[in-house]
Amino acid sequence: METAENKQVIFKGYIDGVPKETDMEVKMGSEVELEVVKGSGALLVKNLYLSCDPYMRGRMRQFYGSYIPPFVPGSVIEGFGVSRVVDSDNPNFKTGDLVTGITGWEEYSLIHKTEQLRKIQQDDIPLSYYVGLLGMPGFTAYAGFYEVCAPKKGDCVFVSAASGAVGQLVGQLAKLYGCYVVGSAGSNQKVDLLKNKFGFDEAFNYKEELDLDAALKRYFPQGIDIYFDNVGGAMLDAALTNMSLHGRIAVCGMVSEQSLSNPKGIHNLFNLISKRVRMQGFLQSDYLHLYPRFLEDVISYYKQGKIVYVEDMKDGLESAPAALVGLYAGKNVGKQVVCVAHE
Amino acid sequence: METAENKQVIFKGYIDGVPKETDMEVKMGSEVELEVVKGSGALLVKNLYLSCDPYMRGRMRQFYGSYIPPFVPGSVIEGFGVSRVVDSDNPNFKTGDLVTGITGWEEYSLIHKTEQLRKIQQDDIPLSYYVGLLGMPGFTAYAGFYEVCAPKKGDCVFVSAASGAVGQLVGQLAKLYGCYVVGSAGSNQKVDLLKNKFGFDEAFNYKEELDLDAALKRYFPQGIDIYFDNVGGAMLDAALTNMSLHGRIAVCGMVSEQSLSNPKGIHNLFNLISKRVRMQGFLQSDYLHLYPRFLEDVISYYKQGKIVYVEDMKDGLESAPAALVGLYAGKNVGKQVVCVAHE
Repeated sequence: METAENKQVIFKGYIDGVPKETDMEVKMGSEVELEVVKGSGALLVKNLYLSCDPYMRGRMRQFYGSYIPPFVPGSVIEGFGVSRVVDSDNPNFKTGDLVTGITGWEEYSLIHKTEQLRKIQQDDIPLSYYVGLLGMPGFTAYAGFYEVCAPKKGDCVFVSAASGAVGQLVGQLAKLYGCYVVGSAGSNQKVDLLKNKFGFDEAFNYKEELDLDAALKRYFPQGIDIYFDNVGGAMLDAALTNMSLHGRIAVCGMVSEQSLSNPKGIHNLFNLISKRVRMQGFLQSDYLHLYPRFLEDVISYYKQGKIVYVEDMKDGLESAPAALVGLYAGKNVGKQVVCVAHE
Repeated sequence: METAENKQVIFKGYIDGVPKETDMEVKMGSEVELEVVKGSGALLVKNLYLSCDPYMRGRMRQFYGSYIPPFVPGSVIEGFGVSRVVDSDNPNFKTGDLVTGITGWEEYSLIHKTEQLRKIQQDDIPLSYYVGLLGMPGFTAYAGFYEVCAPKKGDCVFVSAASGAVGQLVGQLAKLYGCYVVGSAGSNQKVDLLKNKFGFDEAFNYKEELDLDAALKRYFPQGIDIYFDNVGGAMLDAALTNMSLHGRIAVCGMVSEQSLSNPKGIHNLFNLISKRVRMQGFLQSDYLHLYPRFLEDVISYYKQGKIVYVEDMKDGLESAPAALVGLYAGKNVGKQVVCVAHE
């Protein structure tokens, strides 16, 4: 039976605080059989692109009460990816098919849970977009904006982490909907992207603002109708005091909170009452019935040049640990992807 | 022109922290004319019952961004009351009519804003209930439970400050709807009321619980579907970690937070995402179209003996400052009312 060397990224063990590169190990020398055992129903895939997503921090702690179980210490890290089928014992897939879904952080993966994979019909859209614009983050933006934020034309929309994998699409969808859109990000380079590439009306670098409340009052003198919250923490607190009557807050990620064992806490929830605000946590996986419409809409917008997408592409599996760790310091500019192989 | 002595409760000035009796002054010796000036459209009323409500703390600080303006230092305190019309220059009201709405903390009030008054059709329901069960607190419970909590039969419902003006009705409406209902309160006397008078399935004294999270896990091993939050603070934080999937939190009052200039903050909002929880602030005043149905439903339940209502009645206008202050220490057992005059 033919075999190949299979470089892997191993999760070393449960962590406190912010992930470090040393929490993972790039392991050489494993071998993989390139044929699938008959009767297993499994696929052997070659991984092309791997996705680094903030939610992965949640799988690095020993907590079983979440919507997704923790990683297994000593095992390969899992995440979204784009892969090519090398061998298939499953009638729905054949050698050469391109698929996207949960795979391993390694060169080749044997996938038994094939029901969560989607086949990709390749056209002129970059393959890596299937873990970004057309994958979980893009769908999060789509479901969150249209289904959770209940937008109206003319609404004043604030997006935090706005140049990230989710935020950049939220802002562009809101602009296409006829909203006034302001984004925050953590560097002047990102602010420039928001204003000049993604077409936000305004953007600001939160690290240069001494007073987030004052910053929001500057951009939203009439109040925020929709806050698409990707960060939690101090920005959420500042947004709460600037919501307009009957405003909506879509709670999408809390990257500023997840790693802290003792965050400062949110102090301004009283505004939920005085402004009658709805604050709604959501996961894209509750809206999968909308996925076909999402693909159709977003591919159409993309092909018409109405939306763009910016990726931060790192090359080689060995760059994956640093790429993941960089997310929590905001080092990525755009959606963080790792290219494992080009085909 | 006939006059009468008019005892009044004066708001002395803006405060920090918890209200004290000395923030108010019972002033004797004012006189009031018992006839209304022709052409004014006003009413002169004799106040019978005055309502002490937690929201009133919000009017004691100099903050204009809320849904209701602050009190005016040196002026009579305003609040909900039940009154009898002594003289009327308004065709919609005549001498002898009973009315409920915003009045002054004094023996007689001249009311110009007559559009906010409702006439009471007296029957065998205690008049004071029109500031409790059939007034703002009761309607808050009704609109909050049916419209904000989106209840389903069999839901597990948690109510904090459950023996208070709002909580006692929320729990009883939830029981009538077929829910499992647990309440928290701050004394064993109140816990006894919840279990033996209001028919809650379970109740606990939060002051006797070292660990609120553990207490909620004991009563809600399957999670909380609906949390009707009257207090905010540590109880909200504990409830957040115990919400079930797609749970709802109606944010009604935050009596534990309002008086504190530096509350501890809420730390567990991440659960909004993992459990996809909707947290919604509301005010009863947004649901006034439902008021006639509310009156009909609740009067009917009351007359059938399906709901009861407990008041904490203090006698005499001079008892009003202590009664209001007592709310913030949980001294009241049931809805806090002050009887100014019996007819």
